[in-house]
Amino acid sequence: MAKKLEKITPLEEDFSKWYLDVIKNGDLISYGKARGTIIFKPLSYGIWENIQKNLDTEFKKQGVKNVYFPLLIPDSLIQKEKDHLKGFNPELATVTEVGGRELSEKYYIRPTSEVLFSTYFKDNVESYNDLPLIYNQWANVIRWEKTTNPFLRTTEFLWQEGHTVHADALEARKLTKTMLRIYANFLKKYLSLPVIQGKKTPREKFSGACSTYTIEAMMKDGRALQAGTSHYLAQNFTKVFDITFKNKENKREYAYGTSWGVTTRLIGALIMAHGDDRGIIIPPKVAPVQIDILEIFGHKNPEVKEFALQVKKYLSKFFRVELDSTDKNPGFKASNSEIHGTPLRIEIGAKEAQTKEITLIRRDTLEKQTIKFDKSIKLTINKLFNDIHKNLYDQAQKRMLDNIVTTNDYQEFKQKIAEGKWVIIPFCGDEAAEEFIQQETGATARCIPFKDPIKINKKSSCVIDGTETKRNVIFAKSY
Amino acid sequence: MAKKLEKITPLEEDFSKWYLDVIKNGDLISYGKARGTIIFKPLSYGIWENIQKNLDTEFKKQGVKNVYFPLLIPDSLIQKEKDHLKGFNPELATVTEVGGRELSEKYYIRPTSEVLFSTYFKDNVESYNDLPLIYNQWANVIRWEKTTNPFLRTTEFLWQEGHTVHADALEARKLTKTMLRIYANFLKKYLSLPVIQGKKTPREKFSGACSTYTIEAMMKDGRALQAGTSHYLAQNFTKVFDITFKNKENKREYAYGTSWGVTTRLIGALIMAHGDDRGIIIPPKVAPVQIDILEIFGHKNPEVKEFALQVKKYLSKFFRVELDSTDKNPGFKASNSEIHGTPLRIEIGAKEAQTKEITLIRRDTLEKQTIKFDKSIKLTINKLFNDIHKNLYDQAQKRMLDNIVTTNDYQEFKQKIAEGKWVIIPFCGDEAAEEFIQQETGATARCIPFKDPIKINKKSSCVIDGTETKRNVIFAKSY
Repeated sequence: MAKKLEKITPLEEDFSKWYLDVIKNGDLISYGKARGTIIFKPLSYGIWENIQKNLDTEFKKQGVKNVYFPLLIPDSLIQKEKDHLKGFNPELATVTEVGGRELSEKYYIRPTSEVLFSTYFKDNVESYNDLPLIYNQWANVIRWEKTTNPFLRTTEFLWQEGHTVHADALEARKLTKTMLRIYANFLKKYLSLPVIQGKKTPREKFSGACSTYTIEAMMKDGRALQAGTSHYLAQNFTKVFDITFKNKENKREYAYGTSWGVTTRLIGALIMAHGDDRGIIIPPKVAPVQIDILEIFGHKNPEVKEFALQVKKYLSKFFRVELDSTDKNPGFKASNSEIHGTPLRIEIGAKEAQTKEITLIRRDTLEKQTIKFDKSIKLTINKLFNDIHKNLYDQAQKRMLDNIVTTNDYQEFKQKIAEGKWVIIPFCGDEAAEEFIQQETGATARCIPFKDPIKINKKSSCVIDGTETKRNVIFAKSY
Repeated sequence: MAKKLEKITPLEEDFSKWYLDVIKNGDLISYGKARGTIIFKPLSYGIWENIQKNLDTEFKKQGVKNVYFPLLIPDSLIQKEKDHLKGFNPELATVTEVGGRELSEKYYIRPTSEVLFSTYFKDNVESYNDLPLIYNQWANVIRWEKTTNPFLRTTEFLWQEGHTVHADALEARKLTKTMLRIYANFLKKYLSLPVIQGKKTPREKFSGACSTYTIEAMMKDGRALQAGTSHYLAQNFTKVFDITFKNKENKREYAYGTSWGVTTRLIGALIMAHGDDRGIIIPPKVAPVQIDILEIFGHKNPEVKEFALQVKKYLSKFFRVELDSTDKNPGFKASNSEIHGTPLRIEIGAKEAQTKEITLIRRDTLEKQTIKFDKSIKLTINKLFNDIHKNLYDQAQKRMLDNIVTTNDYQEFKQKIAEGKWVIIPFCGDEAAEEFIQQETGATARCIPFKDPIKINKKSSCVIDGTETKRNVIFAKSY
């Protein structure tokens, strides 16, 4: 775009403003005309495509089958599961007419597709031979939220929703945890994002679930972001929807269910965990453009143009590359590459065209190196991408661990939460106590971690009511 | 599924019934609860995924960038392009309330996203430097059709819609044709489907377009199916939406547009072009399952089980493979594989487990061959897949060419159309004459082919009004 680059508010000055500035300057979205919606421009949609492609590969290794259910849920169907959908009711976009004619039955745009999957399972499951059904859907959903924020909470968002039914409770429980592990590994391997894996407290779990597992990531302002969840539903839904199967003894049993999902919110996570005052930094594995090649005054020097094209042609065999051959000035081009978060840029000017060398500049550290343009370049760049990936991960990991503390004292807890820390406390799990903490501090129970991320005192009593408890819970302010 | 296989109505007896039977028995869809919607079960969605993945790769080679626009179009925006949307008006699903509260403005579920893309282009195009914008969206759309038919015409369907703007008319025209060629090549290379490429007559073109190009495929009942279209929009939309750019002389100009799309209708095309009385036949390149391995009485013979698993493990490295290790009888398993259209099945019984040989059965010809299970198997199967692909293509191609005829005589034209042929006639292009033909014969002008598919008399006069014309038009009954 020919537009001027605007100033990004420094991250330390105002994090929310920084976030919106980064998104705007990075050409990640435009705002949609419908309330709270966003247009995913090529850069943000490209990130989502790479997330989708790679995560889907992991799903398929687990035997997940993708399906596609209708967008619209008839009113009659939703009446069946009023309890589950109660939370969504105020957010349901409702189709009442077609072409100006009123419909005899209303339709809701899916806020989630549990009801549709469940109805399908009821109709398609007969015997243990039909199980498990391990289904997933990549789709758009609508929830008419009161306040919205790009990627983090939008009226319409993109996600995947996995829904499964099993003949065996243990198998279902195992899958629930497998999917959580897949999410955690994916965030580490592709988004350079460390997470804490754990179980939600009763107050924070999905109301339809027996257990909810979560991955929680720390943003640069210290807040927690729930980046993915996996629910063990036991027979909660299968009883409501009468999903039964004949077991090997020819007796009818209710099946066991799970569901799990991640959304385009992951793009927000990536921005808020890695971005800096120059804008977004995209980890190489999901970057739609991995390398920007910048011609330096190429319009005045045909040799520069020729060499830049040669470099582009060669690197395109291995990487996702774009060439900026416009006549804009070099400083603008460099800022433009940085603001779009491209992990690596290559500058080619008169000197480089002469010596057949190229200058590589990393987006994360801004380090420069000049190397010969020969076959070794593929290896050099792959190594650089690994370094960038690792550096982003290590920084995020260090920041996270540096900002998790533990205490047995409620006053200290309050103080640390106010400082923006994640605080691990021995906590009984009582819902009223949890609400009290939230009201006093604004922090919520993020999870009971599978593994304590820092060293903590194992045997203790609840910070709130003093009851003996072995349960350590992470509290933090969150998105 | 444990359900019994039902009989498929023979194709020659009742083509429409055959089509629905094939879809039902092949577990391709379930009907949705919302009127005219379908649930894409793993088999049909898997085909769509393979279409999407491979077609998208072709798009990206052309510099296409994927984006995602909101599902809902505000009423105020649609008022702008009433003319264009007039055709869609009776089909627009309308959101009037959220959570029981009436909205101050209505929203329409996109029947297509021209309006959204155009508004975006207006806001984002400033100078020639910003052009071209070559965008594409993979999305769901809703059109409340009166009569529906699985894949061919459904209330909700999946598609890709490409929308582009250019500084140069010639560049836009060229892209329009490039996209059509990509569609035609894709159908040939991936779906084993020959098509006729051509231009729509003024009566059949998209009303917003300057020229509409189409690919037309012949189904087994002789009807034509419009499988993809590409529109050169010239400045029609850019004038309505005021999409201008500053050219190199710093003068404002309207940009030039194109749009192009294919839909999940391609799945219907594939069924109706290749299927037989045993069910669907899926071309190997888009088959979600390429090989079914059937254990023959494996539950009574551990050696069979072991060998089948060994074969599966090895072949899974190269192909998409499923193993049927249930205790169902061999005849059922074979029919089950056939009815799901898997291009190749491998039967492994006691004899095979002993000799370490496997028996391969092609879905298209039902030919069997027994070969040694060694490293050469990868090559053998790849060759078989090529043969199957080519055989499906050649059969469809021969059928198409055998059923295209040409005449200069209107009485013969009517007779051939009644026989289910595609008929090429010299035709003036007059809209009233075209309507007359449709009313008399039920046939519509499918296209003015780029290349005549059969030998025809070049110089002639219009079959209807006798005026001199060099334009040869294909007429046929269509879906």
